[in-house]
Amino acid sequence: MRIILLMKYYAYENFRDDTISLISQIKEFEPQIIIAIARGGLIPAHSIAEGLGLREVQSLRTELYDDTKKRDSISVFNNCKLSEGTKRVLVVDDIADSGDTLKAVMDDLRSKHLGVKFKSATLFYKKTSVHKPDFWINEATEWIEFFWEKDFL
Amino acid sequence: MRIILLMKYYAYENFRDDTISLISQIKEFEPQIIIAIARGGLIPAHSIAEGLGLREVQSLRTELYDDTKKRDSISVFNNCKLSEGTKRVLVVDDIADSGDTLKAVMDDLRSKHLGVKFKSATLFYKKTSVHKPDFWINEATEWIEFFWEKDFL
Repeated sequence: MRIILLMKYYAYENFRDDTISLISQIKEFEPQIIIAIARGGLIPAHSIAEGLGLREVQSLRTELYDDTKKRDSISVFNNCKLSEGTKRVLVVDDIADSGDTLKAVMDDLRSKHLGVKFKSATLFYKKTSVHKPDFWINEATEWIEFFWEKDFL
Repeated sequence: MRIILLMKYYAYENFRDDTISLISQIKEFEPQIIIAIARGGLIPAHSIAEGLGLREVQSLRTELYDDTKKRDSISVFNNCKLSEGTKRVLVVDDIADSGDTLKAVMDDLRSKHLGVKFKSATLFYKKTSVHKPDFWINEATEWIEFFWEKDFL
């Protein structure tokens, strides 16, 4: 058996154009805070915040660990503080692949902040993802190598 | 009187080259965690983390408010959690301009985490800054327009 891994380099220029499209989708939602999922969501979140003129960006991180009994488990390390009166929050990641991370993060945030509307945005979305982002640009059909994973090595 | 504002567009390509140089300076310090100062530090922090192969990036944010009595005051909103045994943390921002933000952040972190060594890194540094970063690349002599402030509008 031979496994052929299709890998696509996703350059800054592609990212810039896609992020501008993503921003125009998101605008209507009028988020008050952006939460980035580190690390992959940090560069998209900052860029979207600049495009929307939104000052408040927070971040959280997750860890994946092998749960030998069932599927992989996700730990969400979430110290985000939403100021009183916050109504709309955008959660940003680079890709909804399995979707496990985004699902765990959205569940965690929604359970902690009842009455706040959370929507999600990613650049890439795989149809098999357990979480479908509210805003996304590209369907991922191959392995994406984001410029930030390659350009600084 | 005429005020001439010298503005320099700082493109992604310049950022990439400078960040690679910054990473090679930082390597020796072997940080275990990177803390980004939002928003300006988010893209540099993520990029540096990728270059160092470091998974843990957290962020904090600051707000500047006019203190009519004296100079501007900085509020630091810091929910960072450092896991036990953390010894070396890198704090990242885009520029040390007045240096007030970086000084406030470093003071806040050091007062909360005695025994942890904090160092700072920026892409630009103004000689008049009250905080001199441990790692920096360019001296800022004009107004810098970072690509993320321009490319997504």
